[in-house]
Amino acid sequence: MGESKRLEAGVTRTDREMSDGRTIRYYDTQGHARSAADKRPIEEQPGIGELRLDPLVNEWVAMAAHRQGRIFLPPKELCPLCPTHSDLLTEIPESDYEVVVFDNRSPSLRPPVGDWALPDLVGPDTDTGTSAGKCEVICFTPDHGQSFKDLSPERVRVLLEAWQDRIRELSQKKFIEHIAPFENRGEEIGVTISHPHGQIYAYSYLPPRVEKMLRVAREYKESTGHVLFDDVVAREIRDEIRIIARNSEWIAFVPYASRYPYEIHVAPLRPVADLAELSPRAADAYPEIALEVMKRLDGVFGIEMAYIAAWHQAPVRVGRDLLRLHWQITSVRRAPGKLKYLAGSESAMGAFIMDMRPEQSAEQLRAVKLEK
Amino acid sequence: MGESKRLEAGVTRTDREMSDGRTIRYYDTQGHARSAADKRPIEEQPGIGELRLDPLVNEWVAMAAHRQGRIFLPPKELCPLCPTHSDLLTEIPESDYEVVVFDNRSPSLRPPVGDWALPDLVGPDTDTGTSAGKCEVICFTPDHGQSFKDLSPERVRVLLEAWQDRIRELSQKKFIEHIAPFENRGEEIGVTISHPHGQIYAYSYLPPRVEKMLRVAREYKESTGHVLFDDVVAREIRDEIRIIARNSEWIAFVPYASRYPYEIHVAPLRPVADLAELSPRAADAYPEIALEVMKRLDGVFGIEMAYIAAWHQAPVRVGRDLLRLHWQITSVRRAPGKLKYLAGSESAMGAFIMDMRPEQSAEQLRAVKLEK
Repeated sequence: MGESKRLEAGVTRTDREMSDGRTIRYYDTQGHARSAADKRPIEEQPGIGELRLDPLVNEWVAMAAHRQGRIFLPPKELCPLCPTHSDLLTEIPESDYEVVVFDNRSPSLRPPVGDWALPDLVGPDTDTGTSAGKCEVICFTPDHGQSFKDLSPERVRVLLEAWQDRIRELSQKKFIEHIAPFENRGEEIGVTISHPHGQIYAYSYLPPRVEKMLRVAREYKESTGHVLFDDVVAREIRDEIRIIARNSEWIAFVPYASRYPYEIHVAPLRPVADLAELSPRAADAYPEIALEVMKRLDGVFGIEMAYIAAWHQAPVRVGRDLLRLHWQITSVRRAPGKLKYLAGSESAMGAFIMDMRPEQSAEQLRAVKLEK
Repeated sequence: MGESKRLEAGVTRTDREMSDGRTIRYYDTQGHARSAADKRPIEEQPGIGELRLDPLVNEWVAMAAHRQGRIFLPPKELCPLCPTHSDLLTEIPESDYEVVVFDNRSPSLRPPVGDWALPDLVGPDTDTGTSAGKCEVICFTPDHGQSFKDLSPERVRVLLEAWQDRIRELSQKKFIEHIAPFENRGEEIGVTISHPHGQIYAYSYLPPRVEKMLRVAREYKESTGHVLFDDVVAREIRDEIRIIARNSEWIAFVPYASRYPYEIHVAPLRPVADLAELSPRAADAYPEIALEVMKRLDGVFGIEMAYIAAWHQAPVRVGRDLLRLHWQITSVRRAPGKLKYLAGSESAMGAFIMDMRPEQSAEQLRAVKLEK
């Protein structure tokens, strides 16, 4: 039997071991027993990858060569994220579930064995590091054909509870410096399994974008005494024109300097460092705005938009008072049949060119008629 | 008649005005007159866009809303980069050409009018700037069906001469801080016109990646006294295993911490800041290695690889002794039918995950049999 633990919002977490030693965690509100065993043969675990320093920009690149052969767009009847049924033994041994989180089978980052430290950065002579960290998969629903926006508000609340639980637990691990839960949707952006799910990447280093956000926020704090993100939200509230949704606890806007045709930031009105710090009241108000934003996004063209939805959080150990939790949704769709690509200017130079004014996409997102 | 000017390598440049006031420059070795007039009706020029500061990372984003309606994958018989013939008035009034460079019709960046300066960076209250700069298109050949790799060595030499000429001239403009010539190839990365051509982006600000490279190179110089890129090349030569081509003046390697399945850096053995500083001897040796590298790239899977090939240069006014010229080719192709996408980790966090070891792709690139 699995070990169970009570969380907030009536959610119980039950842990089970998978046949290859990985852990699967069931997040339930309905009091299920979760006793099904993983009946698949034991497979060898892939080795841990390495981190290499790109000396030109002082950034780690994780080498995960074992991922090259990972599963690629399986047909629905072979989906590894559906519940197990008689003909198909999947990643989830139970025949039904609400939300589950399990260790990724082809992780880019893995927990290190024994003592572990990143090498010092010394330019092109920097030693290779171990790509330490942890990669988890989070399934939003057993229903293969759904999307985030089709979830019930109750299910989104369970999902948020699971995210919060993962942040709390992963933050305890000594080798983890930053945690990013995100969802990729759409074959256009390389999603290899269409079942509604997200991923949780826990890094042993500060990801380059986080490092830069931290540096900029630190400089801003030193020169103004303010937390940068709070001033950014205040400006969006003042400008009003780019706000697309709000409720008592959250606000959603297209940022002033968006990089993608449809980019939305969703932030709690009472700022916190990460998901674990969200109050129960803010957590309870999240499903409403999350579902509204996702429905508005798909409503713009009446098609399922390819997107990346990522939680930006403060790092686990540094900058807790400098960076703020927000949920960033970016879509590469610029029109039906047209995508925004990162070509020469964006990819080689990091200089983004936007083909559309943020005010224009905010207006389109607001204009979407939602079913009540 | 156009104004003519003699350059190196037997190349003559002839300038002509297009009907809407833009300039087209013919780079020729065969002594053509280049007197054909642009007979198209005069079209209104799009307005200048704006720069907005993304305050979370202190980076400019260029807003070019007028580009949304630009031409998208025209059929060959309507290609605007082919020479003009009886039925079709294109961007190039002549009925034939070698290499031409003309001002982009839908530029992301445009020369400013009158006095111009970027606003100071002050977080979310930073004023909007003018998206000053210049965008040019460079056509490699009149032959619509060719690719860079099909060009003759003589043509590549003319192309390089044209690039060098553009760098020299654009560097004189007070509002330009950085210049990046690049080529995007393949519909997979969003190329909207398949005719073999590149672009030249001249920015009025340091692109974020250049700014970071400059900061890292400055810190490295301060702590070691060395130029970072020179040490990087020295390490690649010492390691040897990732080198894929070399001649008397150039070296091509898959970098130690590549971010893409097929990434190649091509660098002159005698380091220089930018294309304009290349010696005639280095320039004469470029076509050989450039063509070899491109043939190797397409040879890996026997298909045309989607790629971005960008010249990294030192900025026009700063860091001239810190950054070095190199040509970076990145391909998002990881296997036939499979692309590398920038999803959650790369796009939201800036943390790259590589599915393949650089030594492995270097070996594949070296193993390609080239026709003599």
